[in-house]
Amino acid sequence: MTVYWCELAWLGTGDADAAGSGDDAAGAVHAGVSITVVGDRIAAIDTEVAAPPPGAVRLEGLTLPGFANAHSHAFHRALRGRTHADAGSFWTWRERMYELAATLDPDSYRALATATFAEMVRAGFTCVGEFHYLHHDRLGRPYTNANEMGDALIGAAQAAGIRLTLLDTCYLSGGIGGGELSPVQRRFSDGDVGMWAERVDALVGSDTLVGSDTVRVGGAVHSVRAVDPKSISTIAEWAANRSAPLHAHVSEQPAENDQCLAAYGRTPTEVLADCGALGPRFTAVHATHLTGHDVALYGSSGSICCLCPTTERDLADGIGPSGALRAAAVAMCVGTDSHAVIDPFEEIRAVELDERLATLRRGTHRPGDLFAAGTAVGHRSLGWHDAGRLAIGALADLVTVGLSSSRLAGTDALHAAAAVVYAATSDDVHHVVVGGQVVVSDRMHQRIDLARDLRRSIRQVWP
Amino acid sequence: MTVYWCELAWLGTGDADAAGSGDDAAGAVHAGVSITVVGDRIAAIDTEVAAPPPGAVRLEGLTLPGFANAHSHAFHRALRGRTHADAGSFWTWRERMYELAATLDPDSYRALATATFAEMVRAGFTCVGEFHYLHHDRLGRPYTNANEMGDALIGAAQAAGIRLTLLDTCYLSGGIGGGELSPVQRRFSDGDVGMWAERVDALVGSDTLVGSDTVRVGGAVHSVRAVDPKSISTIAEWAANRSAPLHAHVSEQPAENDQCLAAYGRTPTEVLADCGALGPRFTAVHATHLTGHDVALYGSSGSICCLCPTTERDLADGIGPSGALRAAAVAMCVGTDSHAVIDPFEEIRAVELDERLATLRRGTHRPGDLFAAGTAVGHRSLGWHDAGRLAIGALADLVTVGLSSSRLAGTDALHAAAAVVYAATSDDVHHVVVGGQVVVSDRMHQRIDLARDLRRSIRQVWP
Repeated sequence: MTVYWCELAWLGTGDADAAGSGDDAAGAVHAGVSITVVGDRIAAIDTEVAAPPPGAVRLEGLTLPGFANAHSHAFHRALRGRTHADAGSFWTWRERMYELAATLDPDSYRALATATFAEMVRAGFTCVGEFHYLHHDRLGRPYTNANEMGDALIGAAQAAGIRLTLLDTCYLSGGIGGGELSPVQRRFSDGDVGMWAERVDALVGSDTLVGSDTVRVGGAVHSVRAVDPKSISTIAEWAANRSAPLHAHVSEQPAENDQCLAAYGRTPTEVLADCGALGPRFTAVHATHLTGHDVALYGSSGSICCLCPTTERDLADGIGPSGALRAAAVAMCVGTDSHAVIDPFEEIRAVELDERLATLRRGTHRPGDLFAAGTAVGHRSLGWHDAGRLAIGALADLVTVGLSSSRLAGTDALHAAAAVVYAATSDDVHHVVVGGQVVVSDRMHQRIDLARDLRRSIRQVWP
Repeated sequence: MTVYWCELAWLGTGDADAAGSGDDAAGAVHAGVSITVVGDRIAAIDTEVAAPPPGAVRLEGLTLPGFANAHSHAFHRALRGRTHADAGSFWTWRERMYELAATLDPDSYRALATATFAEMVRAGFTCVGEFHYLHHDRLGRPYTNANEMGDALIGAAQAAGIRLTLLDTCYLSGGIGGGELSPVQRRFSDGDVGMWAERVDALVGSDTLVGSDTVRVGGAVHSVRAVDPKSISTIAEWAANRSAPLHAHVSEQPAENDQCLAAYGRTPTEVLADCGALGPRFTAVHATHLTGHDVALYGSSGSICCLCPTTERDLADGIGPSGALRAAAVAMCVGTDSHAVIDPFEEIRAVELDERLATLRRGTHRPGDLFAAGTAVGHRSLGWHDAGRLAIGALADLVTVGLSSSRLAGTDALHAAAAVVYAATSDDVHHVVVGGQVVVSDRMHQRIDLARDLRRSIRQVWP
C-alpha cells in the first residue's frame, strides 16, 4: 500500500459525455488530497487533507489521471525533424515514411518503440493505442512467429512501463477498389481478412498476452482505401464478438473522401456505418473532413473521434470539426500519431485553439472537457474503462504536473487546471505512476536512459 | 575576450528577403564553430574547428543568434491561465485584461515586467519590443515623472538582461472616429499627439536612455481605433525624423476592418499608408485580416509584418496570410504579445503550421525562413540592424539549444535546424549570451530567481 498526498488534484469525473458537459476544471481541483493505492488500483481518496499523513509520498503540483495516447505509429518517431528538407512538402514526408517502414526489423522496431513509448510516459501518457500494421518481413512474408512485430511492440511497452492497446490493423490493398500493393505495403498485408483474423486470434491467445495486466488487443481498419467494405464488416464482427475496441483512419484528407465517393457513392464514415463498424467501441481517427451527416452518424452511434492536432498541423490535413462534434455529443480523445510532438498538453489544448482559429470564437471546449479528452475518453477508446480517472477502484495511473516552472509559476489552485491545459508542457511532468508503479520521478524515467536510447534507436534505422 | 566553441552553429544570413529565399537551414548549420567575442560584439567566427581551442567555453548543441520578441505587452503575463473560466469567451479575456491594467502602479509593473522579461531571456529571446501604452496613474493623471511607467519597463529589461526597444504607444480615443475613453483607458492617453511626442522626446533625452547600450525607443500607433489619421501622420513624421521604428496593431479582428471601412472607406492598412506610416521602419502587428491590396502595400513599401501566432490562437483572431505575405516579399517577424506562451520555437513554427492548416499545403516557409523571422527580421523591426545574426561585427547575442532532451535526441547535424524549429521548446535553451554577457547558463537565469519572482509579482497584482 502506498499513500500519495497531492498538493492539488483534479477529481473531475472526466467524462465529456453529452454536449459539452465536461467538468468545470476549476471546480474539480481540490487542495490536499490523499490517494491510497493498493496493488495497481486506487483504494481510497480523501479530500481536505491539509498535510501529508505519516509515510505518505508528497506530490507537489497538480495531480491528474494518466493521459491516454489513443493513436500512435511508434516508428514515426524516427521521422521527427527529418521531413522538412527544402520546405518539406507532403511528398517529402511520405517518401521518408515509406523509406523508414521498409527498413525496420523486429529488433530495430522494438528498440525504437521502447524509446518512443518511454518518451510518452515521461510526457504524462500512461496508456497508448498502437495502430500497428507493419506485420511482415521486408519481402512481405510472415515471420516464423507471425506476430513477431506485434510482440516487439508489446515487449517495448512493457519495458517502457506504459499500458498498451495493440490495435492490430488490417491493410489489404494499395488504393480504393483494390489497388495493387507497393513493395513496402506488402509488409502490411495479411492477404485477406480471414488471415488477418487468424493471426490476431493467435496473438490474443498467446503466452505474451494471457496474464498480462497492462496489454490489451483491439482491431483496426487501416482505412477505406486499404480495406474493402466486405472485409470491414468481417473486422467489425470480429471486434463485436470480442467486445474489443475498433479503430479506423477516417477522412484525414479531402482526397480520401473524393476517392471514396467516386468508388462507393458514400463518404468513408457512411461506408464504415453501413459495415456495422460504428458504436461505442468504435473510434474514428482524424475525422478531419466530415459532412454533417457523418457527424450525426457518430453522435447517434455513440462512437468516439480521435483528433491528432499536432500531426494534422504537421501534415497539413486541416482542422477537424471539434465544435460540431461537441454539439452532436460525440466524445473526443487525442493521439500523437506521427510523433512530430509527444506532449499531452500540446495535444489537448490544440483541440480548442485550432477550433478558435477555424471559427474566430473562443471557448468551445472548457479546460475540463480537454482533460477528459486526454484521460477518460482516451482510455475508453482503447478499452480501458477502468482507467483515466482518479476514482476508487480505478487503475492507479497518476500524473503530477509541477507548477514551479516559468511557464506555470504564479498560478493558484483556482486557475491551476486552466494554466496546465494552456501553458504546461511535457517538461512540467514531474512524477508518473502506472498501475501503482513509479515510472517517472523527478522528471526522469526510472528504467530507461531516454536520450541515449532515442539517439541509438533512431540513428540505427537511418543510414 | 571570450571564445565560444559551438558544437553546431546556424550561420544563415538570416534574412528572409525576397519571396521566400531564406536560407536552407540545413546548409547553414556548421559543425565546430568558434565565435570570438570582444566587448559586446562578435570579433571573429571560425568554422571547421574540430575541438574547443584552449580556454574556450564549450557550447553543446545548436547555437543560434538571439531571438527578438517583436511584440510584447509585459503585464499580460499575469493573465496566463486566468482567462478561461467556464469556457473563456473573448469577453472573459478582455474584462480580466482591463481589470489588470487598472491595478498596476510603477512598482508592481516593474516587478511583473522584470520577471516576464527574465522568462523571455530564459526562453531564448535576447531582445524585446514592448508596445507600451500604460503611461499614467490610475486616474489618468501623469506621474510626476511623466515617463515613470516607461522607466519601470526600462529598469525591468536592464535587470532581466534583455535588450529593449520601448515602443512608446500613442492611444487617444476609445473607438474609431474619436470614441470616449473608458476609465481605465484614461491611463493610456496623453490627451493629444503633441503631448505624446513631448513625453516621448523627454524619455529619449533622459539620463535613463542616454548612454544605454541595450535600450532604444520607437514609436507606435495603438491602432486606427485609438488614433485618428491626422495624429497617425504626426507620429509617422516623428518616427521618420528620428529614424525610429514605428509599430501599429493592424487588422487583428474583422470587426476592426468593418469599423474602419465604415468610418474612412479604407482598410486600416490603407489608412496607415495614406498617413505615410508604411516603409522599411514600419511593422504591422498581427496583420491577420488583410486584403490583397493591403498585402501589396506592405510589399511595395518594404514594411514588416509581425505575426503573434500563439496569441492569435488564444484570442481566436484567426490565421494571418503568411503565404500571401511571403509571395509578396513582405518580411515577417514574431511576437509573444499576450504571453499566453513565451517560447520562440512555438511562435516561429506556428507561422508555417498555421499556414498548413489554412491552405492544406505543406512547406510554404522553410526552416531557415522561420529562424530568420525569429532573429534578424525581428531585430530589424525593433531597430537593431546590428543584431540577430552570427556575423563579424554583430552584437554578441547567442542562444544555444541543447539536443539531448527527449524532444530532440536522435537528430544529427543535417537535421538539427529542422528538428529545433519543429520540436524544440524553451526548455531546450541551455545557454544565452546578451551583448557578451552570460545571462542564462545550464538553463538557469543567472541573476533572477524566475519561479519566485513570477509567483510574487503575479500574485501581487491579483487580489
